[in-house]
Amino acid sequence: MDKYGLRIKEIRERMVEDEIDMYLIDDADPYCSEYVDGYYKLRTYISGFTGSNGKLLITKDGAYLWTDGRYFTQAKIELKSNAKLMEMGREGVPTLQDFIVDKGGSLGFDEDNINSKLIASIMDKAGAKGVNITVFSGLKYAREIVNKEEKVILNPKEVRILGDDLVDLTAKKKVERVREYIKKKNGDIYISAKLDMNMFLTNLRGNDIKFNPVAFSYVVITTDDAYLYLYPESYKDNRDEIIKYLSDNGIKLLNMNNFKEEISIICNGRKVIASLDSISFGLWESLVKNADAKYIPEDNELETFKAIKGEKEIGHMKKIYLKDSVILTKFIYKLLHSNIETMDEYDAMVMLDDMRLEDEDCYDLSFNTISAYGANAAMMHYECTKDNKADLQRKGMYLVDSGGQYNGGTTDVTRTIRLGDCTDDMIRHYTKTAMGMLRLQNSVFMKDSLGVNLDILSRMPLWEEGIDYKCGTGHGIGYMLNVHEGPHYISQKIRNTSQVSPIVPGMIVSDEPGVYLEGEYGIRIENILLCVEKQKNMGDTFYKFEPLTLVPLDGSLIDKKYMNSDDVKYYDEYQQLVFDALSPYLDAEEISWLKDYIKA
Amino acid sequence: MDKYGLRIKEIRERMVEDEIDMYLIDDADPYCSEYVDGYYKLRTYISGFTGSNGKLLITKDGAYLWTDGRYFTQAKIELKSNAKLMEMGREGVPTLQDFIVDKGGSLGFDEDNINSKLIASIMDKAGAKGVNITVFSGLKYAREIVNKEEKVILNPKEVRILGDDLVDLTAKKKVERVREYIKKKNGDIYISAKLDMNMFLTNLRGNDIKFNPVAFSYVVITTDDAYLYLYPESYKDNRDEIIKYLSDNGIKLLNMNNFKEEISIICNGRKVIASLDSISFGLWESLVKNADAKYIPEDNELETFKAIKGEKEIGHMKKIYLKDSVILTKFIYKLLHSNIETMDEYDAMVMLDDMRLEDEDCYDLSFNTISAYGANAAMMHYECTKDNKADLQRKGMYLVDSGGQYNGGTTDVTRTIRLGDCTDDMIRHYTKTAMGMLRLQNSVFMKDSLGVNLDILSRMPLWEEGIDYKCGTGHGIGYMLNVHEGPHYISQKIRNTSQVSPIVPGMIVSDEPGVYLEGEYGIRIENILLCVEKQKNMGDTFYKFEPLTLVPLDGSLIDKKYMNSDDVKYYDEYQQLVFDALSPYLDAEEISWLKDYIKA
Repeated sequence: MDKYGLRIKEIRERMVEDEIDMYLIDDADPYCSEYVDGYYKLRTYISGFTGSNGKLLITKDGAYLWTDGRYFTQAKIELKSNAKLMEMGREGVPTLQDFIVDKGGSLGFDEDNINSKLIASIMDKAGAKGVNITVFSGLKYAREIVNKEEKVILNPKEVRILGDDLVDLTAKKKVERVREYIKKKNGDIYISAKLDMNMFLTNLRGNDIKFNPVAFSYVVITTDDAYLYLYPESYKDNRDEIIKYLSDNGIKLLNMNNFKEEISIICNGRKVIASLDSISFGLWESLVKNADAKYIPEDNELETFKAIKGEKEIGHMKKIYLKDSVILTKFIYKLLHSNIETMDEYDAMVMLDDMRLEDEDCYDLSFNTISAYGANAAMMHYECTKDNKADLQRKGMYLVDSGGQYNGGTTDVTRTIRLGDCTDDMIRHYTKTAMGMLRLQNSVFMKDSLGVNLDILSRMPLWEEGIDYKCGTGHGIGYMLNVHEGPHYISQKIRNTSQVSPIVPGMIVSDEPGVYLEGEYGIRIENILLCVEKQKNMGDTFYKFEPLTLVPLDGSLIDKKYMNSDDVKYYDEYQQLVFDALSPYLDAEEISWLKDYIKA
Repeated sequence: MDKYGLRIKEIRERMVEDEIDMYLIDDADPYCSEYVDGYYKLRTYISGFTGSNGKLLITKDGAYLWTDGRYFTQAKIELKSNAKLMEMGREGVPTLQDFIVDKGGSLGFDEDNINSKLIASIMDKAGAKGVNITVFSGLKYAREIVNKEEKVILNPKEVRILGDDLVDLTAKKKVERVREYIKKKNGDIYISAKLDMNMFLTNLRGNDIKFNPVAFSYVVITTDDAYLYLYPESYKDNRDEIIKYLSDNGIKLLNMNNFKEEISIICNGRKVIASLDSISFGLWESLVKNADAKYIPEDNELETFKAIKGEKEIGHMKKIYLKDSVILTKFIYKLLHSNIETMDEYDAMVMLDDMRLEDEDCYDLSFNTISAYGANAAMMHYECTKDNKADLQRKGMYLVDSGGQYNGGTTDVTRTIRLGDCTDDMIRHYTKTAMGMLRLQNSVFMKDSLGVNLDILSRMPLWEEGIDYKCGTGHGIGYMLNVHEGPHYISQKIRNTSQVSPIVPGMIVSDEPGVYLEGEYGIRIENILLCVEKQKNMGDTFYKFEPLTLVPLDGSLIDKKYMNSDDVKYYDEYQQLVFDALSPYLDAEEISWLKDYIKA
């Protein structure tokens, strides 16, 4: 039995002691963040499975791990015989909720490690089936094993204030906007556990989750007061500055370690607006169970407020995207002029990351660079490592999906680059992918249009080939914040209607169709688009997109015979736009290369 | 005071007698049909307002009529001072529900005349606001006034059996399919008040609502039994035939007049699957209040079952649509070769209707033909009459939206025809409308795609012009049934997600973009499309459309300079397809004309 088997065994012994039938572990933080700090990776620690999605359920005589199709192969390797893989979506595999309800009995977990919505859905199912599930939320078995063995500690980093030159609205104005929302929703208090929302509202930035400039925090706004909860470590060396800044904006700084206790008191008997999706069971208990508060679900209004960038912010982003585009274009030039045969995916990644981080405004990457050659590019979320990487060759295609955190914006861009001989299929698929990306980029749409209305523009050229990409077409992007943000998105699927937001001027969205042929090759082309107004006519308002990304498409992978006359126009115009924008920042050799590179 | 004022006054006197604060009247039948027989037009009878959407609320000191933008002008004229017009959607105008809740008190109505969902929404609002509303559902004031004054009677017509050659599945098989559904939903009984569903399930057709070949009926299916409730008049002369036919299919014929009494007994203590949207408050009471039944809301599964046409049915529809296309094309030829200056919209309508009804298989129109010249075509639902019609002229455009009920299918088609000089704007707008129609017709989409995903294909060419049409792009069409049917539709809007159905092979849908410029002109081009499978690839399935409609577009209104190369291809291919399909049925002069007509 390896260390993971022993850890599961130890948890099971504690379950027997406490008479608990099932124990649930996740990699989740109390803020329900998309990415979490290592401190919160309890499921990884106990099971050995490192994927970004996975829930471990330990029973008296078994252990089960639920994950999705991206991770089936990896999970089988990492789990060994310690836990049974439950392949989500596969026929005959029950959901975690159904599995728990079918077993029935007592369910234990660490309340800071489990989303309240998950527990609510289990209890709903149990109720409908007349099954009795008793919840024990204070059982910190996994955390106690970590503490005993390695004592991983939480290490909050210092927060910093965004200068007035970087943002359009002061924190004070944003708090006022939240108060309008509270009034409109007929509530008393707004509570946010969403770290990017907390950073947005306070105009602070942290460094507590890799690639995400956020600080562990809660924001609480009432009709009269506003509180920001931070760990004392977050303002150890700039305490006075932070307190004064917050106080100038009408916000009181409070100690995170007192949050749970204080929030129960603050909320007691009041109407609390919060997002159930983004709070842990522990916070949920503090809010509702202990506080006897009335809960009002948060809708997408403040997420929309966050997603609509201001004029100043858009100005900064345009500069930063141009800068980032210059860097990526110089990287493509450098790569194609390198001795490719001696390089691997990791070398290429380091080359690009270094080029980006050399920039004075770039202080971090916005996510782990995806540097994928050949068949590896068919894995949408491939990550090469020092030990696991493919050599580059002078044939086929190389895909690079990357971005940076800059003072002035968060970037994200994907290009697929021809390294040598390519098949006709590759060229046709690249051309169709480019057509899809360009059709969405050149679309015109009316006020109130949703991502589900637009998605087909990017996707149909590939559907005509009998190919679908198994992901959405686009996600929102934060301003000096997380590279993924809502509430808008571009996809075929209708999510919860109350959370569906129209795409409106000031929003930023990615446009990234692709082709993923397992074992063969992958193509993705991703531009970031800014929604702007196009025209008003007869009482209607129409919008369009402006590309922020200005990186050339690979002309040698384009065959115009697959394009209609609009596609050709879009292609030629975009390549010319890119050429004109980049030339001032390129040297003579690069310009000469680019002239050739953009030609189809 | 005119007769409407007197009728409202009489109702108010009865309200005072019975101590009722508000009395609600609609034009609605117990089946919540989209179109209703004159017998059920109580609101029209009492208020004088004849629009297809309008609810009349009489209070102790007022009368109020809610209707939508299509009818504001008409309502003002028809209502005179008898009732206050409540313009739905206008700022400051409360909804009917809010208005009733704000007043509070007792609300009376005729339970067969009001939708149960409307009452539920009023009660929900009242509950949320803590207002007390007492409902009195048995008050037939309006009906009693009708009976006293004119004694309008219900006149059910004889039903007929669709021959085996006309349908793919017997009624017996359809009943079995419903039983699978009951089992799946864990219910005991399925009740349908939807007349088209009842006709579909029993393979009968009636003639009780103008243009809709349906009979007043209810269908009740349990795990063991199946009942069809009809008025005795519906099988007066073919009683034995109908009883035997139904009995052969395992269905028992019961008397409609006993329905309410019997249904309470049948449902008592059982789990009843029904669609709340399509039952009257009276049926709702019988089902739930009196029967102590558990209610399970019907989802879209059986609607989808109805919407997917079988092979035999598709074969018939193809023949019928070809025949109908020949008729409409011959009409266009005849019209253009008539002495147009001496004709008006009504003459043109009669000409077309006669041509259609002359066909041996056409037994009715599928709706009132929209025959609209010039600015009248800008009104989407314009109806000319003997007394209210415009003269045709040798300039501008004429729009005709029409269809027939045939043995073998229900048709619907719109063409806009140039009668003489047209402006450049007209030509550009017609071309863009045709582009939208053709792009959707030529689309490729994956399994599970919804109408909200496809809509933009038809709409974007007009959005690029700053023009939106204020309606959906497409509706489903019944087989020898109602010209509008669900559950699928093509539109920008997300309706109730549980009711949203993917477009799948065997479904029929309209594709009808348009331009409506008030006071100027209207353009609509409508083809009916059949969804078919295109290909399977890598585990995915892709669909496309085949046009059932084969009527030429007006080449003299097309300017190819506005089209991209795909649009030109789609246009040329469709016109050629039409030409090839129609030629065998046209005479030499018509063929010679058509050759020229299809040229852009």
